[in-house]
Amino acid sequence: MLQAQQLSALLVTDLVNVRYLTGFTGSNAALLVWAEPGRAPVFSTDGRYVEQAAEQVPDLVAEISRDALAPLLTAAENCAAANSAAVDVGPVGFEATQLSVAVHADIRRRAPGLALQATTGLVEGLRIVKDEHEVGLLRRACAIADEALAILLEREGIRPGRTERQVARDLEWLMYEGGADGIGFETIVAAGANSAVPHHRPTSAVLAEGDLVKLDFGAQYGGYHSDMTRTFTLGSCAQWQRDTYDLVASAQQAGLDAVVPGALAADVDAAARSVIAAAGVGELFAHGLGHGVGLQIHEAPGIGSSATGTLPCGAAVTVEPGVYHARRGGVRIEDTVIVREGGPEILTVTTKELLVL
Amino acid sequence: MLQAQQLSALLVTDLVNVRYLTGFTGSNAALLVWAEPGRAPVFSTDGRYVEQAAEQVPDLVAEISRDALAPLLTAAENCAAANSAAVDVGPVGFEATQLSVAVHADIRRRAPGLALQATTGLVEGLRIVKDEHEVGLLRRACAIADEALAILLEREGIRPGRTERQVARDLEWLMYEGGADGIGFETIVAAGANSAVPHHRPTSAVLAEGDLVKLDFGAQYGGYHSDMTRTFTLGSCAQWQRDTYDLVASAQQAGLDAVVPGALAADVDAAARSVIAAAGVGELFAHGLGHGVGLQIHEAPGIGSSATGTLPCGAAVTVEPGVYHARRGGVRIEDTVIVREGGPEILTVTTKELLVL
Repeated sequence: MLQAQQLSALLVTDLVNVRYLTGFTGSNAALLVWAEPGRAPVFSTDGRYVEQAAEQVPDLVAEISRDALAPLLTAAENCAAANSAAVDVGPVGFEATQLSVAVHADIRRRAPGLALQATTGLVEGLRIVKDEHEVGLLRRACAIADEALAILLEREGIRPGRTERQVARDLEWLMYEGGADGIGFETIVAAGANSAVPHHRPTSAVLAEGDLVKLDFGAQYGGYHSDMTRTFTLGSCAQWQRDTYDLVASAQQAGLDAVVPGALAADVDAAARSVIAAAGVGELFAHGLGHGVGLQIHEAPGIGSSATGTLPCGAAVTVEPGVYHARRGGVRIEDTVIVREGGPEILTVTTKELLVL
Repeated sequence: MLQAQQLSALLVTDLVNVRYLTGFTGSNAALLVWAEPGRAPVFSTDGRYVEQAAEQVPDLVAEISRDALAPLLTAAENCAAANSAAVDVGPVGFEATQLSVAVHADIRRRAPGLALQATTGLVEGLRIVKDEHEVGLLRRACAIADEALAILLEREGIRPGRTERQVARDLEWLMYEGGADGIGFETIVAAGANSAVPHHRPTSAVLAEGDLVKLDFGAQYGGYHSDMTRTFTLGSCAQWQRDTYDLVASAQQAGLDAVVPGALAADVDAAARSVIAAAGVGELFAHGLGHGVGLQIHEAPGIGSSATGTLPCGAAVTVEPGVYHARRGGVRIEDTVIVREGGPEILTVTTKELLVL
C-alpha cells in the first residue's frame, strides 16, 4: 500500500492504529513502517512501558524514549541520508487527521531534511474489514452486552422508581461481571422526555410509568466494542409510542436489508431514512444511520446521507435509526452487524419486539 | 489575552476548552471568541445537541451544523471582509496542539481569505488556576475517592484471594455510589510483581499474602477529576517493602513541601527526586513527579525534570513519586493538592501510613 502511494515509510502516530498494527495498548507510542518488504518497523514508547512493550510486542525491540517520535525521526533521517543518491526514495507519510499542526511543525523543525507527505485513512482503511479473530472479539463484546441486558430485565431492574443512573450503573456492572474489559462508551439511559435527546447522559431522573426508556450501551472486549440500543415502555404503551416504535423498527429492518457487500453507505442510510420520511417525520431523524465499529466505537465506514463509501464484506457496522419527539420522547433501535454475503450477521441478538416492562 | 497576541479572534476546537468556556459537554462543538470586548462568541454544535446546548449554554444561541466549523468560518470571513479596510485587524488564532493537519488544510481551502495564526495553550493557561467553584468540584471528586477507599478497607475488600479486577470494580462501584459522575481514568490495581509496572491495567491476577498492592484511581465530578495513589502490603511486610515505602513517603513529603506559589515545576520534581536519588535508586523513579488536574486528568502544568513552568497559587496538581523494583514490586504515593500560600491544600486525605492489610 505504501509503495502504491510512492511513500518510503509511514509514521503511525494514532495510538489506535499503533495498537492495530502492533498489539500495544499503552498511552504513548509511535511506529514507523517501511514500504520495503521485510524491513523491521521502528516501534517506540516511554520508560513506563518497558515491560508492557516486551510482553505485547515481542516481535519488535522497543526504542525507549520519553519523546516517542525521536527514535522514528532519527531512523527516517538515517534512511533518507543513506538513500540520498537513489531516485526512487519517496517521502515519509504521516497521519494528517491525527497529527496536530503543532507536532507537524515540530517534526519539520527537528528533521528539516525529511520529505513529509500527508496521508488520510491508510490504516483506518485496513481496519474496516474485520478478520475472523476480530469478529470473534466483536461477537463476545456483543454477547456480554446482550447478557447484561437479559439479566437486568430478568431482575426487573428497569422499573418505575429507579433512576437513569442506577440503571446505567447496573448495566455497566453486569457487563464487567460478564467479562468486559471496559465499558464501550458512555452508557445512555434516557427516560421519558429525556429519551428525545439522542445522546443523553444518565441523570438522577426517576423512571415513571408510561415512560419510553432508551438504553444505548456496549462493552469492550479485547479492545473491540459492541454497540446496541433498545427502547422499552414502562407499565403501559400509548398509541403514539407504539406507532413511533413500529416506524423505527420498520426503518431499522429496511436498513438491515440494505446491508449487502458492496452497497453504497449512502444508499443504506436512504433505505432506512425513506421509511421515516414516508411517514412524514423525516426531520425527527436528525443523525446518520450508523457507523463502523471495532477498536473504536466510531470508525470507518460512516453510514449517512452524505457518506461516500461502500460496505465491503466483513465490515462491522451499526444500523441505528431513531425518531425523537422533542419534550415527549424518542425511540432508537440499533444493532451491531457484520456485512456478509446473503445479508448481515447480527451480533446483538436481544429481541426487537416492543417490550412493555 | 487575544488583543495582547494581536489576534482578532480565537477558534476553539478542543472540546475540553469549549466546555471550560461555555459549559457544553457534547461531543461535537466549536467556538469562535472575538478579541473585541462584549462581542458574542459564535457557538456551534450539531442536530443531536439542540436541547442540550439550549440547557447548558443558555447565554449563546447555538448555530446548528453537522460540520461545527462551518458557521465559525462564515462568521470569521464576514468579519474579515467587513474590516478589510482597517489596519488593526489581526489573524484568527487556532489551537495548534489540537487542530489536525488535515482540518487545518481544510480550513485553508474553505476560507482562503482568512489569516490564520497558530496558538498554543491559551485556554489551557487560563485553566491552570482554579477558582473556588472549581476547587469545590475537585474537593468533592477527591472526597468521593477517599470515601470509596475507606469503605473498601472497612469491608476488607483488599485481601488475598481477590483479583485485581474485582478490587478495581469495587472501587469504581463505590465511587459511583458515592455520587461520581464517572471514573476519572482507568483504575489501576496492581498486586505483587505487577505493582512494579507504573501503569498496570487490572487483570485476573490474584492478590496474595506478602504482596505490595498499588491502587491509583479517581472520580469525576462535575467534569473535574481526582487522582490518588496508595500502596499497601498484604498480611506481612518485608523489610525491602517497608524501606521502599518509607523512601517514597519521604520523597512525596519533600515534593509537597516544595509546592509553594511561584515554585519552578522542575524544582518541585527535583525536591522529591533527590530524596530517591540520594538512596541510590534514582533510576527506579522513571516518570515525572506530577501533573495538573482539572477538566482533564492530565493537564498543565506538568511537574517533571524538564518542565519549564511555575506553580501559581490556585493551581491543582498531583505529587506522585514512585520506586519500582522490576519483577518484585513497586510503591507509589500520590495526592491531589491545591497550590496555596503557606503550603499545599491536600484534597486526598486517606492516610499515608503504611497499612498492612
